[in-house]
Amino acid sequence: MHRVSRVTSAPEEDRLNTQIAFALEIDKLKRVIRRNSLMDGSRRENDAEHSWYVGMLAMILGEHAPPGTDIQRVVAMLLVHDLVEIDAGDTFIYDAAAVAAQIETERAAADRIFALLPSDQATLFRELWDEFEARETVEARFAKALDRFAPILANHQTEGGTWPLFKVRADQVREKVKIIEEGSASLGAYAYELVDLSVRRGHLPE
Amino acid sequence: MHRVSRVTSAPEEDRLNTQIAFALEIDKLKRVIRRNSLMDGSRRENDAEHSWYVGMLAMILGEHAPPGTDIQRVVAMLLVHDLVEIDAGDTFIYDAAAVAAQIETERAAADRIFALLPSDQATLFRELWDEFEARETVEARFAKALDRFAPILANHQTEGGTWPLFKVRADQVREKVKIIEEGSASLGAYAYELVDLSVRRGHLPE
Repeated sequence: MHRVSRVTSAPEEDRLNTQIAFALEIDKLKRVIRRNSLMDGSRRENDAEHSWYVGMLAMILGEHAPPGTDIQRVVAMLLVHDLVEIDAGDTFIYDAAAVAAQIETERAAADRIFALLPSDQATLFRELWDEFEARETVEARFAKALDRFAPILANHQTEGGTWPLFKVRADQVREKVKIIEEGSASLGAYAYELVDLSVRRGHLPE
Repeated sequence: MHRVSRVTSAPEEDRLNTQIAFALEIDKLKRVIRRNSLMDGSRRENDAEHSWYVGMLAMILGEHAPPGTDIQRVVAMLLVHDLVEIDAGDTFIYDAAAVAAQIETERAAADRIFALLPSDQATLFRELWDEFEARETVEARFAKALDRFAPILANHQTEGGTWPLFKVRADQVREKVKIIEEGSASLGAYAYELVDLSVRRGHLPE
């Protein structure tokens, strides 16, 4: 791999070089593998395609967020929300100990990764990620709801998908649906139905 | 795979079911493989992770678009720009005959895929795609520039990457850089430098 060297070094060129270095770094997100599979079960999903997918979900399902939600901010938040996993890896959300340990690891990852950007942009990107994690705004709550909704939909579509592999039970999934409900009442209701259907079909034990 | 069946059928629920059916359909974009590889050359890239990546490039490099460019619209355009490839497949941009044949195939794909959405949304998504393809707005020209920039960066990073495999020559790449230049003068200049560097390093024949 080559770093591009420029003949001149005007401030604007330095800035562009810094941005390109960040762009090269974040390509690594395509190699972080998640627990859930694609909707057809053919293989497990990576973080980059997942990030695209939840960004699309925001565009498709935006009307299910509370009135006044800034959907474009939700999209931006979802595109950057998993960048920290370049360093921290994907944490299995049903592993409580791992989730607790993950907080500091992800914060350290955010410190390193966003700092690769020019400082004004580093601040803006970090604010998006902090907002997503804090879940205090309607935008962050809706973004987190979509992030939780996608793998439940995938597991439902694939006869339980990776739930049995990781011995997940219905009440654990329902705990995650609460987070969906906090972001969107209608998507929460829909997700509870998916869980119930999966139970009735024998793809998810009570 | 299961289609979710609902107990009630109020219009809002029908609408959500329609949106979810569209969401399930577009997951297929993760299985459309492109000609270029990841930045580390480890494997070829799929359309979904590519769409995430160019959306991120818009967020990172937005200041290199003409003043007044609506970057959030550029992001939205880039997230949807390759959906037609679910039906039409990835067309190799250096294969002129394939590119000519592709226009009708992609239009038919757009007719089918966007029509899966509720009609008001079908119109909005189709407008984004039509705008991207027409390259008449600053947003579309910048979006297309990023779409062209990413694979050149990937091939440059991987010692020519897939260029030799498809017998691509420098002047063919420079033709594509013109499209980058039309969307962003500074990214165009940067891309010409990447081409020249690749030639000097023996990774791209003149």
